[in-house]
Amino acid sequence: MNKLRRSARLVDMTQHLLARPHKLIPLTYFAEQYGAAKSSISEDLSIIKELFETEGIGLLKTVAGAAGGVKYIPQMNKEVARKAINKLKEKLEGPGRLLPGGYLYMADLLGDPEALAEIGKVFASIFAETAADYVMTVETKGIPLAYAAAAYLNVPVVIVRRYSKVTDGSVVSINYVSGSSKRIQTMSLARRSLPENSKVLIIDDFMKAGGTIQGMIDLLAEFKAEVVGVGVLMETSDVEERLVDEYVSLLKMKEMDVRDKEIKLELGNRFV
Amino acid sequence: MNKLRRSARLVDMTQHLLARPHKLIPLTYFAEQYGAAKSSISEDLSIIKELFETEGIGLLKTVAGAAGGVKYIPQMNKEVARKAINKLKEKLEGPGRLLPGGYLYMADLLGDPEALAEIGKVFASIFAETAADYVMTVETKGIPLAYAAAAYLNVPVVIVRRYSKVTDGSVVSINYVSGSSKRIQTMSLARRSLPENSKVLIIDDFMKAGGTIQGMIDLLAEFKAEVVGVGVLMETSDVEERLVDEYVSLLKMKEMDVRDKEIKLELGNRFV
Repeated sequence: MNKLRRSARLVDMTQHLLARPHKLIPLTYFAEQYGAAKSSISEDLSIIKELFETEGIGLLKTVAGAAGGVKYIPQMNKEVARKAINKLKEKLEGPGRLLPGGYLYMADLLGDPEALAEIGKVFASIFAETAADYVMTVETKGIPLAYAAAAYLNVPVVIVRRYSKVTDGSVVSINYVSGSSKRIQTMSLARRSLPENSKVLIIDDFMKAGGTIQGMIDLLAEFKAEVVGVGVLMETSDVEERLVDEYVSLLKMKEMDVRDKEIKLELGNRFV
Repeated sequence: MNKLRRSARLVDMTQHLLARPHKLIPLTYFAEQYGAAKSSISEDLSIIKELFETEGIGLLKTVAGAAGGVKYIPQMNKEVARKAINKLKEKLEGPGRLLPGGYLYMADLLGDPEALAEIGKVFASIFAETAADYVMTVETKGIPLAYAAAAYLNVPVVIVRRYSKVTDGSVVSINYVSGSSKRIQTMSLARRSLPENSKVLIIDDFMKAGGTIQGMIDLLAEFKAEVVGVGVLMETSDVEERLVDEYVSLLKMKEMDVRDKEIKLELGNRFV
């Protein structure tokens, strides 16, 4: 790249950092890229850092030393996150979302890239310090949430299948009991999709008794993986015995009046 | 926001634009946000525009007039896209990817957020002018690709289900014949997930004879939707009769030697 003026340099550094969350970028990279002195790069970074922090975009962490550099950590503060999740709550409480069988229609919100990015950033902020190597979810509805969180954590997603596919190669399968329906089900994960001893963050859309999450935890044991966190978009409150103790929920389903088709949500355990 | 110096303003405008592709932002928004004159905002935008264009990040389109403003259009030029897809091709041709039954293992690449963002940007660049209202795919493996493209187009994703779920409410189902296996299958889409007369871009991971894509096209007819484009990551070449004529492929599977476990890919029709 040709020598850039500071203004252009700031634009390029901003886009470069935003596209690579949680990745350490050596100052020499920027210095060589722009043909600029390290001291100028440091000044640029402090401008970006201040703006990112005051605007609630995230943190710029500087790591000193020979192997040092700068890292962008997406970070939405708890109050901004609370507002975002409250907005989501209001949308989900809107009329016509309660479906027969007591299900909540969320596909439109989970299809909207801006809403999804926001939820992903909330999860990534909560689990920023876990040093997760992977985000794991089970097909199908958790997939967009897992990708949204993984994008801000900058780690790959592994998807547990409910039906093992021939295109996965050798798989590890386990049976689990869905806590709410009490039915025995199978989930499987391709052997090659997760190296042993990985640190894994589990993300899912919905948790009733937690049987599916517990199934994923059991499956991870087969891969000698460490579960560094569990995050669900919504938990239900009408559960006699929950199978999973440690988890973060963003929303909680409080009451559901199937006859009047009314639904009442509250904020999840993250915000209590 | 307090009055910002130009340097901080450039950082904030850059992140604001990057987070909202294809969205028209009035200049007055920036002017009010930063307490700056429109002429200063215009100068800032021309700095960002030049950098975005020389670095191949995208275009900044200015719309004149009272309802005017500026729009960031993610745009990867064809040569950069060719390089990115070539890199992907080399990875996919690597050893051990050919699975029994002649399937190609791609889950790791489709799980990697940086690789995925790149493919998403390639699709979004190709279909930038289609004015699609939605990206549609069918579960499961096409989902991450659809979201990656939709993020850069800034439109929602609708997911066609292979098994209709009780959580979808009223659905429209069709039968289709998978062209390669000749089996009759069912796919369905929730009635409320797609308003009538929408413009829809179809994205999927793999196309053999095109039966699944044709099924989605037929399903869209039930929603009075207009198909504005079809993009697949990979097509196969051993097809006697293709059911779909107009589509863009990024990669093409040329040869597959199941005995020697070797696979040969070439670039798709986009790059010919």
